[in-house]
Amino acid sequence: MGRRGEFALIRDLFRPLAQATPQALDLADDAAVLSLEGQGDLVASADALVSGVHFLPADPPATIAAKCLRVNLSDLAAMGARPLGVLITAALSAAQDDAWMEAFARGLGEDLTAFGLALLGGDTVSTPGPATFSITILGTVPAGEALRRNHARPGHDLWVSGTLGDGALGLLAAQGQLLGLPAPLHDHLVDRYRRPCPRVALGMGLRGLAGGCMDVSDGLCADAAHMARASGVAIEIDAPDLPLSEAAALVIADAPERFHLVLGGGDDYELLFSAPAEARDAVRKAGADAGVAVTRIGRVLPVAASAMPGVRVCDATGGTVGIDHPGWTHDA
Amino acid sequence: MGRRGEFALIRDLFRPLAQATPQALDLADDAAVLSLEGQGDLVASADALVSGVHFLPADPPATIAAKCLRVNLSDLAAMGARPLGVLITAALSAAQDDAWMEAFARGLGEDLTAFGLALLGGDTVSTPGPATFSITILGTVPAGEALRRNHARPGHDLWVSGTLGDGALGLLAAQGQLLGLPAPLHDHLVDRYRRPCPRVALGMGLRGLAGGCMDVSDGLCADAAHMARASGVAIEIDAPDLPLSEAAALVIADAPERFHLVLGGGDDYELLFSAPAEARDAVRKAGADAGVAVTRIGRVLPVAASAMPGVRVCDATGGTVGIDHPGWTHDA
Repeated sequence: MGRRGEFALIRDLFRPLAQATPQALDLADDAAVLSLEGQGDLVASADALVSGVHFLPADPPATIAAKCLRVNLSDLAAMGARPLGVLITAALSAAQDDAWMEAFARGLGEDLTAFGLALLGGDTVSTPGPATFSITILGTVPAGEALRRNHARPGHDLWVSGTLGDGALGLLAAQGQLLGLPAPLHDHLVDRYRRPCPRVALGMGLRGLAGGCMDVSDGLCADAAHMARASGVAIEIDAPDLPLSEAAALVIADAPERFHLVLGGGDDYELLFSAPAEARDAVRKAGADAGVAVTRIGRVLPVAASAMPGVRVCDATGGTVGIDHPGWTHDA
Repeated sequence: MGRRGEFALIRDLFRPLAQATPQALDLADDAAVLSLEGQGDLVASADALVSGVHFLPADPPATIAAKCLRVNLSDLAAMGARPLGVLITAALSAAQDDAWMEAFARGLGEDLTAFGLALLGGDTVSTPGPATFSITILGTVPAGEALRRNHARPGHDLWVSGTLGDGALGLLAAQGQLLGLPAPLHDHLVDRYRRPCPRVALGMGLRGLAGGCMDVSDGLCADAAHMARASGVAIEIDAPDLPLSEAAALVIADAPERFHLVLGGGDDYELLFSAPAEARDAVRKAGADAGVAVTRIGRVLPVAASAMPGVRVCDATGGTVGIDHPGWTHDA
């Protein structure tokens, strides 16, 4: 078989990861118990990742584990929350043999430690289909201070953390479609696709500063449109100001049509947020404190003043960039 | 296509279910925010259900939704917790068209209401494999009062709620293997397989009364063995005392070899618990208050006094019943 039973798998691979967490009750009970007294509000989010859809079957198991955690950490970051713990269910196919699962558990353990997350519980089942991982992440935020996507207000600047487009370009690289790139830049893109950098510290630093806040998972324009609709505002994005990594800039210099992946590619997991103009210095300081660049990329307008109800992307001359990729959906 | 996109699905089907829950933020943000101040400890558990493994592809979508919730509610019941809310991720195949999903959402909504659960978040993705649902359930329990499976002590009685074997016999019935049964009894078994009855009220009533407590999901003997190992005790079960439904009793009278499904079949989702002898009246009252029968089915012994380290099943003459089905695992 090369496959342990469910109990053996939990015992051998996952229990050591939970031992640092007394609340998980050693994964021996039906549920974990946590005391949250005095910790403010609880923040909860869930995401599912399917092999061949959200990660490549040939991706290293350790980076698949990392991606599962980090995609969910990014949701906490978007709310300004401090990570607390995760519950993971894994539907495993025949491709997940013992060696695969050991590598997965190793990557999981490394990221749990790196991000201060407790493993609070889980379930492993068999599936004849592709491996599917579902992660629920729990965090805490001081009462009433959670960041929300519906708090963008006319007059706010629009900001984004890090760089855009690397996730979608990293997928191309991992698929062998960007072989002309120098190896370090190629590897940088692949790593950004496989192991996104959730902006947890920045999200916590933006409490009380940011207006609207969310993470860029579906693509910049699609997510900005979500924020615009939720907040009842229009959003203008200045295309020339969008922050690119050295690797992304090189790809796009070579093939300008790939700029649409900066606007509409998914999997960036950067923070997109608005803030009043008077908070500019404080926002830059929050970025510096969190060790991540923050870039002003546009502005929030009243709906009536805009030609479009949601998002408009401006080119260097103030013209409108056509968005033929309004959002990259895994579900297409 | 007959399939809405992810956002349309969440908006149309699941958002109305979340609207009664301000904490879910209308499912519009990256995460739900909940105030738990003064509510004691948080209890969290996760389970995954795969089509063809944990439910039959032809099961009605509404009962699949019910089973997903109820299996998880049973984990809360085992901890003595009060249900709070759920996060659901759904990996959907082509078989889950709009009509299927609408029926699923309807069943989900009915059970959310019936059990007082909030829909706190979720994610829907596509899979080329069988539909897979992952549910994380959150509940609360007064600080320090969660029931635990490792608290069974020598001298305790062993109790079980409801009846045993109906889940496994219900699967046989749903597969058309029990066609000789009168229709009402046949349908009773199928319903028990499709819509287990999580003993939430009983679990809450057993706080401060029960020693060890867990739910019967893998099968009576396998779960009793988990409790025995976790508590460091031996457990004796009196086979003649095991509570059977009228339908199960009829099946077994006709085919005594099917009694192994009472001992080892899974999917019962009854509570298995120990309690001191002096608590018998209080345990019976807790059952009556919760509207569910509780039956004394054995005893907890010191390990040294038992012939076996884990579980022994006794027949009417005190002899040992062979357990050839030590536990029914979905993962076999």
